[in-house]
Amino acid sequence: MAREEGGGGEAQGGTVVTPSAEFPPLAEAELATLRGIGARWRPGGRPGELPVDPTLGRYRRRPPSRFGRLAPIELFKVEEPDELVATEPANLPGSRWGRAVTRLRRALFGPPLSSAAVLYERMRKLVALPILSSDLLSSVAYGPEAMLSVLVLAGSGSLGLSLPLAAALVVLMIAVGLSYRQTIPAYPHGAGSYIVAGDNLGVTPGLAAAAGLMLDYVLTVSVSVAAGVHAVTSALPGLTWATVPLGVLVIAVLLAGNLRGVRTAGNIFVLPTYAFVVAVLAVLAVGYLRAAGRGFAPVPPPTVPAAEGVGLLLVLRAFASGAVSMTGIEAVSNAVPAFRPTEWRNARTTLGWMVTMLVVLFAGLTVLIHLAGLVPRPDETVLSQLGRLTFPTGPWYALLQVTTALILLLAANTAFNDFPRLLFFMARDGHAPRRFLHMGDRLAFSNGLVALAVAATVVFVAFGGHTEALIPLYAVGVFLAFTLSQAGMVVHWRRRRGRGWRHRLVLNALGATLSGLVLLTAAVAKFTEGAWVVVVAVPLLVLLFHRIHRHYATLHRALALHRPPAAGAGPAPTGAGPAEGEELPQQVRHLVVVPVARLNRASLRALAYAASLGQPTLAVHIAPEEAEADRFREQWRAWGDQVRLETIVSPYRAVIGPLAHYLEALHASRPELTLTVIVPEVVLRRRRHRPLHSRAEQRLRTALRPLPGVVVTSVPVHIAE
Amino acid sequence: MAREEGGGGEAQGGTVVTPSAEFPPLAEAELATLRGIGARWRPGGRPGELPVDPTLGRYRRRPPSRFGRLAPIELFKVEEPDELVATEPANLPGSRWGRAVTRLRRALFGPPLSSAAVLYERMRKLVALPILSSDLLSSVAYGPEAMLSVLVLAGSGSLGLSLPLAAALVVLMIAVGLSYRQTIPAYPHGAGSYIVAGDNLGVTPGLAAAAGLMLDYVLTVSVSVAAGVHAVTSALPGLTWATVPLGVLVIAVLLAGNLRGVRTAGNIFVLPTYAFVVAVLAVLAVGYLRAAGRGFAPVPPPTVPAAEGVGLLLVLRAFASGAVSMTGIEAVSNAVPAFRPTEWRNARTTLGWMVTMLVVLFAGLTVLIHLAGLVPRPDETVLSQLGRLTFPTGPWYALLQVTTALILLLAANTAFNDFPRLLFFMARDGHAPRRFLHMGDRLAFSNGLVALAVAATVVFVAFGGHTEALIPLYAVGVFLAFTLSQAGMVVHWRRRRGRGWRHRLVLNALGATLSGLVLLTAAVAKFTEGAWVVVVAVPLLVLLFHRIHRHYATLHRALALHRPPAAGAGPAPTGAGPAEGEELPQQVRHLVVVPVARLNRASLRALAYAASLGQPTLAVHIAPEEAEADRFREQWRAWGDQVRLETIVSPYRAVIGPLAHYLEALHASRPELTLTVIVPEVVLRRRRHRPLHSRAEQRLRTALRPLPGVVVTSVPVHIAE
Repeated sequence: MAREEGGGGEAQGGTVVTPSAEFPPLAEAELATLRGIGARWRPGGRPGELPVDPTLGRYRRRPPSRFGRLAPIELFKVEEPDELVATEPANLPGSRWGRAVTRLRRALFGPPLSSAAVLYERMRKLVALPILSSDLLSSVAYGPEAMLSVLVLAGSGSLGLSLPLAAALVVLMIAVGLSYRQTIPAYPHGAGSYIVAGDNLGVTPGLAAAAGLMLDYVLTVSVSVAAGVHAVTSALPGLTWATVPLGVLVIAVLLAGNLRGVRTAGNIFVLPTYAFVVAVLAVLAVGYLRAAGRGFAPVPPPTVPAAEGVGLLLVLRAFASGAVSMTGIEAVSNAVPAFRPTEWRNARTTLGWMVTMLVVLFAGLTVLIHLAGLVPRPDETVLSQLGRLTFPTGPWYALLQVTTALILLLAANTAFNDFPRLLFFMARDGHAPRRFLHMGDRLAFSNGLVALAVAATVVFVAFGGHTEALIPLYAVGVFLAFTLSQAGMVVHWRRRRGRGWRHRLVLNALGATLSGLVLLTAAVAKFTEGAWVVVVAVPLLVLLFHRIHRHYATLHRALALHRPPAAGAGPAPTGAGPAEGEELPQQVRHLVVVPVARLNRASLRALAYAASLGQPTLAVHIAPEEAEADRFREQWRAWGDQVRLETIVSPYRAVIGPLAHYLEALHASRPELTLTVIVPEVVLRRRRHRPLHSRAEQRLRTALRPLPGVVVTSVPVHIAE
Repeated sequence: MAREEGGGGEAQGGTVVTPSAEFPPLAEAELATLRGIGARWRPGGRPGELPVDPTLGRYRRRPPSRFGRLAPIELFKVEEPDELVATEPANLPGSRWGRAVTRLRRALFGPPLSSAAVLYERMRKLVALPILSSDLLSSVAYGPEAMLSVLVLAGSGSLGLSLPLAAALVVLMIAVGLSYRQTIPAYPHGAGSYIVAGDNLGVTPGLAAAAGLMLDYVLTVSVSVAAGVHAVTSALPGLTWATVPLGVLVIAVLLAGNLRGVRTAGNIFVLPTYAFVVAVLAVLAVGYLRAAGRGFAPVPPPTVPAAEGVGLLLVLRAFASGAVSMTGIEAVSNAVPAFRPTEWRNARTTLGWMVTMLVVLFAGLTVLIHLAGLVPRPDETVLSQLGRLTFPTGPWYALLQVTTALILLLAANTAFNDFPRLLFFMARDGHAPRRFLHMGDRLAFSNGLVALAVAATVVFVAFGGHTEALIPLYAVGVFLAFTLSQAGMVVHWRRRRGRGWRHRLVLNALGATLSGLVLLTAAVAKFTEGAWVVVVAVPLLVLLFHRIHRHYATLHRALALHRPPAAGAGPAPTGAGPAEGEELPQQVRHLVVVPVARLNRASLRALAYAASLGQPTLAVHIAPEEAEADRFREQWRAWGDQVRLETIVSPYRAVIGPLAHYLEALHASRPELTLTVIVPEVVLRRRRHRPLHSRAEQRLRTALRPLPGVVVTSVPVHIAE
């Protein structure tokens, strides 16, 4: 995909996450231009020696007074001749308020981590399995129930349809699993749907997959947190009222944990995931033993009146709802480089284990629920009902609920890992705001984390924390990404034509077709239930990503280096070049303008600064009345008329407007001039004194911003009190 | 009072309001210093001729393209050799959004008015009377009722006490009237309580009077609007629900009218005021004729049960409530210069008429209400009851209500005239924010008007638009100003000792004593009913005014010109002077620092600009990792190492913090250097693109603001799209 404008590019290292991504290297053509510019560079005046040692050699024995407390700590260390390394205290902001905020943040999220601490951890399969499968396996906590919730609308009699639907879903799981199994060796550096679809199908499908994934991650957090809270309120119905605040709290804790960086906490995943699997397996074992005792005769479910008839649409809706059990199946293919060597082989094995476990848990639970004659109830999850039935006494039921809540929490956490990474790759390609490239001081992509938490909280609160209401939105985004990723693999095999490519192509085509069918089913059957939101949002997001990319591309072109024109090579071009076209010192023609309101220390300092630059200088005074203008000129003469003064009478008493227009007019009369507007700025120490001042300096700066060729210089005067 | 620090001073013209007040003249000592500085001024380099004609002689034939629509209009006219006059279009902001706002404002409030349009209108007595008396006379619409509302708490039997109380109030009115009558010739340039108390008693009493007056003005608006709306709802009870929105609407209309400038609308006042007087006189005439018909036998009022006993406190509270009828009596003394010559004599005569009319209306109404046996009711004003009783049929009742509402509106408008003027005088003395000196483009003190409208709206809404609830707050502020003003006159006579000073002193002392007694009565008797708010607010306001003054005084001292030290007279001082101490060009020692994130057109332009200044230059690059630092140095070498580069590796990826600390450290190692930080700034045309950028330039500026001796220069690059 078109990665050249966004900077980065394949050379930068595919799926490697690095803090240097904010500073992409220059292309060879740009370096050549740079050499050409350098050859014609003629500095003005007497640049000569620096009046100060830039390596702070002398300074280190004399720390500045404002940081008296930090005196014993050196803020910078000298490394190479022209290189300093900032130590940790050098990151503290200068203002008291800023330092307090930074301290609080560090207390919450820990001290900053050095770039050198970026870890490229390698995982054993037995560790990778729980980490990568929490999202997938946790879905069985709500997937079968989502399916039954639809079927029960046609009355309890139609609940038996869950068995054939489960069989179809198992086929789908295996097909998609096999399909992803093939992706892994083909993309050993990681095969996110965004990358696979983008590489093989083009930019727009890649962005569509990214949009689907982004919605998927947001909904993963919302749905997992909703289901986790539901697991808790099923066990403790007294907490039902607190569903929404509890969920928001959980999202906040997840955000805080991820801002802190839970990288060393990979092991946290191991226990709950395995515990959940064991707990569900125990439920299955005990349940099937009991069922065997009565000859596998199903308990008839309580009679529920039918709200609608059993139609094709209902069955399709139930199928699409059940399919959300597959969310998270793509996790392994994203994370191939995190495995120990041989990476792709270990990853593939792990994926096999995961899909097997998914099939066992999903099918086992669906059948057992049918045998037990359970019906979805709004106040208690089906899994909780099954747990109570299976373990009427003892701590086992509580354990099941705790592990369910924990694995759902971990599933939500998975999205917190993947969402910022996806945004990082998109930002590197110029499809997302560049701020998502920035690693916070804990080496986490703080901006992406916050964006995810905000979006998930909005969705969670808007839907009142109800899992069922979110499911229709969920399936569409997930299966869009599945379909595009596997369709991308089909194209991949057709292009590469490696060993056995036909066989592989057929397998991926099958996966793509089945995923596509589920996507269509979900989008159509659940359109009115909420899927329309996703159907509308994905194209809008793709459009947005394209627009962002266009902006960055324009910017890149506008800022790209180009060789100075041949005329500029001479000692002093006299022709009127375009404003801001200068790239060589000898091309810059100066006019210094100093707006002066009254003659005091601040304005005299600005005038002295201006005069010290040794360039043509003009002072401008805006007077509200003729009388005041005369008075000011008198003061100017008393000072000795050191600088040419132009007075502008502004009979309507506006200052900024006429000044900006005057500067614009000056510039229009000689467009090749660079106007340097030197503004005296009184800096107040206390924020509460600000309302006593008009902040004319800021307003002038804002008014001058759009003018080309106008440079604004603030000469500060600091007021002690 | 101490006016020297705030600028302005008596020389500026006492109570004359001028747009030049924002630019106070320099004192003679400052001019001398200025001459001294000028004598030692040595500009650096080659200032020479300007490369452009500052009078825009050439430009006027070639208007800038950005204002294509304005092409035929000249933005500036040449007046004197070095003076331009901005025409009206030069006030339009440059941005499309700003121009739209300005256009809307002009459509609402009219085109801007030139400073030359400040009118010093002179009023005939017959015009001055209605203009200045609307506040005073309108009080009789709620004053008697306020008194009766207190008395009725002790049952209908105690309503008869209104007669002796009214007699006492008439004595008070005459005494205060005579007292103010003397102030007028003593202060022919206008005798606001703030100025009289400040001149004679000292700064703090002057500020206390100002605080009292400010509260008075705010409450005048709230109470008058509340009473006016009550006059309307008394006639049309169906509108009672809309009391609060109606009142807020009225305040908004008053604000808009005053922002527009109702200067030419003085005549608006004439008709409603005279109509109100005539209407009330008609009520009195008909009422007394009827009463004469039954031999002046009072109609027994309907029985109202007593809520409390008749005690001294109750009587005092009733007295204090009735005293609010006197608010506005000071209006004439404020406005002496607005009369035709001989100003003080005409003003004094007008005051005499006003007090006479007040006494007639107040006493007449109180007695007639007693004779008619009327009792205050929450749903209808007493004046409205009297009107209905007097004119049961015909349009006369409606006319009475309309003129009552109108005169109350005018009374509120009076506060809109006086409040911003008071703030102007306080701001000129440095006791209020300087923005209150600024005349908006309609020559109105827009900031003061908005402040009053906001405060009055808050009070009005907080009290739900009930007149009675506001009365207790009202009396204290008014009588504080009365007392201080007249006490000031006592001191004035003692100091001046002109002809008949003893006699005048006694009269003012009587006025001050009586006013002081009412003040005490109101503050004590109504303390729990709300007067405590004023008792607390006045000292706090005085403290605030003092603090504001202290800030401006500190600022003035800090910015005052002082002769450069003798050492500075030489060609180049080498010793380390204090940061920002330089006032001569030859004292400024430069180091130019250019932070460079990446090499593109924006940063190369900043580097070219820096090099063209011909001063020692240092480039600084902040790298997140060692590898990136190496890569950047390589690019730098490709360019030809034109400028000395210092690389700072920031392993915690912060940019702004380490850069600011580095600059601070540089400055600390050579405090006499002026560091000019040249920041490339990419200016985006569209606001919606801003979220795609980190605005590092603004953040850097904020971080560098507190550093002394650091000048920040933004070199813009404008992006077309």
